[in-house]
Amino acid sequence: MLRSPETAMLDTPAYATSDASSPLAPFTIERREPRAGEVLIDILYCGVCHSDIHQVRNEWGGNSLYPMVPGHEIIGRVARVGDGVTAFKPGDAVGVGCFVDSCRSCAQCEAGEEQYCEKGMTATYNGVERDGTTPTFGGYSTRITVDQAYVLRIPDGMPLDRAAPLLCAGITTYSPMKHYGVQAGDKVAVVGLGGLGHMAVKIARALGAEVTVLSTSASKREDALALGAHKFAVTREPDTFKQLAGSFDFVIDAVSAAHDYNAYLSLLKTDGTMVLLGIPDQPVPLAAGVLVMQRRKLGGSLIGGIRETQEMLDFCAEHDIASDIELIDIGQVNDAYERMIKGDVRYRFVIDCMSLERTQ
Amino acid sequence: MLRSPETAMLDTPAYATSDASSPLAPFTIERREPRAGEVLIDILYCGVCHSDIHQVRNEWGGNSLYPMVPGHEIIGRVARVGDGVTAFKPGDAVGVGCFVDSCRSCAQCEAGEEQYCEKGMTATYNGVERDGTTPTFGGYSTRITVDQAYVLRIPDGMPLDRAAPLLCAGITTYSPMKHYGVQAGDKVAVVGLGGLGHMAVKIARALGAEVTVLSTSASKREDALALGAHKFAVTREPDTFKQLAGSFDFVIDAVSAAHDYNAYLSLLKTDGTMVLLGIPDQPVPLAAGVLVMQRRKLGGSLIGGIRETQEMLDFCAEHDIASDIELIDIGQVNDAYERMIKGDVRYRFVIDCMSLERTQ
Repeated sequence: MLRSPETAMLDTPAYATSDASSPLAPFTIERREPRAGEVLIDILYCGVCHSDIHQVRNEWGGNSLYPMVPGHEIIGRVARVGDGVTAFKPGDAVGVGCFVDSCRSCAQCEAGEEQYCEKGMTATYNGVERDGTTPTFGGYSTRITVDQAYVLRIPDGMPLDRAAPLLCAGITTYSPMKHYGVQAGDKVAVVGLGGLGHMAVKIARALGAEVTVLSTSASKREDALALGAHKFAVTREPDTFKQLAGSFDFVIDAVSAAHDYNAYLSLLKTDGTMVLLGIPDQPVPLAAGVLVMQRRKLGGSLIGGIRETQEMLDFCAEHDIASDIELIDIGQVNDAYERMIKGDVRYRFVIDCMSLERTQ
Repeated sequence: MLRSPETAMLDTPAYATSDASSPLAPFTIERREPRAGEVLIDILYCGVCHSDIHQVRNEWGGNSLYPMVPGHEIIGRVARVGDGVTAFKPGDAVGVGCFVDSCRSCAQCEAGEEQYCEKGMTATYNGVERDGTTPTFGGYSTRITVDQAYVLRIPDGMPLDRAAPLLCAGITTYSPMKHYGVQAGDKVAVVGLGGLGHMAVKIARALGAEVTVLSTSASKREDALALGAHKFAVTREPDTFKQLAGSFDFVIDAVSAAHDYNAYLSLLKTDGTMVLLGIPDQPVPLAAGVLVMQRRKLGGSLIGGIRETQEMLDFCAEHDIASDIELIDIGQVNDAYERMIKGDVRYRFVIDCMSLERTQ
């Protein structure tokens, strides 16, 4: 890429990894002053998503680009705006999610479903800008420059640290519930009470559904009910699947590890829908009969588009929803990864990005 | 069951098997004179469905009841009606499909989706009537007595032999297209050009879809186009899946043998739906990513309700659709089974049930 001489670059503290086996460590990246249409954001908080770990460790089919600065649950305040920016002004609380650009002209982009862009969205990190050469770096840093069309407005009064995970975990659970049609009165099961699952409980409850958390661990009962679930069942108890057979309109499956899809599908009523949000690292055996005999559906869903992400943020503000988080300094992030792998987080780590200033 | 003394029984020629390993052979069953609300039908034709073979040979988890008279694609004429029958009169051309009763009071029955009856539909054969004791016998016979609420009207002018397979193969393909929303202009792939598949092609075409047949065998190209398909592709050619990736709104999967669901799912556009009609005898590995990354859906569907079956028959009459069949005498049915197992039928065997009169 030819860098136009007027684009000044800003040295920016970050945390990066240089290969699949190294821990994250201090690193300096360049962010550009905002060009026309762009917004320079001072990052305040960044959530830690399980996909950060997969990409840092190159566990997704070798698609990792190094050096990598992870993070796609970004909250900050607008520092400066480029020419023609009308949607934001300095000081505004804003968010950036899993992508920072897309082709803007395909049917999916036109429909506001940029996450399914036919030419591929530009990932917030571990991606390449649409110039084809500039690597993208994520939110484990103190600044980011993003086109205004891919920036979200954080509603007034929303706690900014607890808002960060909404940009991925929130929209990833909100979008399928809207798309597949969760309505008030529906019986919704949430499988897996982690970062995604705890948001699914809150959002399904706010949509008026009757929410049941299904968990392998009885220890999550109290949390599940406190988060808003109406019911809780332990999937390791032998009678659970028999007792709950045919009970649910929707199963929101937020588990990424391989598990028995057929058992969870059998919990759906006729015409019920199970939505997969996670991608196990290998295929899972599917018994066609469990779909055919009750006309059940198994669907998937990937984050959500910009318009719907804004809708989700406004919905969360209206219903006083934010993530339950553990706020950490950047220096704790490698330990946080280890705890996440053990499922030991309630329910999302969020990095206080001001702590990056102290690492340089 | 207490048999009321006024219910006269009629000795009726049939073909039955007495166990999983014996061929079908002449057998005499009793049919009852129609009671209140029932219709006695003289059977003219009965289609031969692949599920007949599975049940005759006890290949569905040991649920077979013997002696078994198969057949659930039944066409005949009303012989006599019981008290209170208003919908049919002697001489009417009628059909009976995969079930002859259901609970009539659950939510599914109330919705006209009797095939998903919460208490279980009463199968036309290899079932037990709702009295809990009387076995049901199917259409490889010359008469059947069925409640008028489970009898279909065959539209005037429809060829009766070619109408028989509509009662199973027709509704099994029509129902999912209506339920999952196939519309004019949609791109529909039909996987497997057999009894179900050839009906799927005709119905999808009549719905205004652009129809592509996907087959392992290049030899079916001419037939596929003659049946109404716009396009044809051979799935054993290495480039087919690459060339057709992301092409279809719907994949109608009429294959019962295990096959690679992920490959066919990859042919769907974003938000596309693949519908399974067959049930392989073992689970098939499903890669969640193929659903998640493009928000695709995998659904199933089981035959269709009575109201929708009538709608399908009327639709077929309006669009001049019937099955392509090979008409056989009952004495050929065991050979027909062997040919079906080899895929050697274009596209449905139909038994001329008058030939049963000659077997006694």
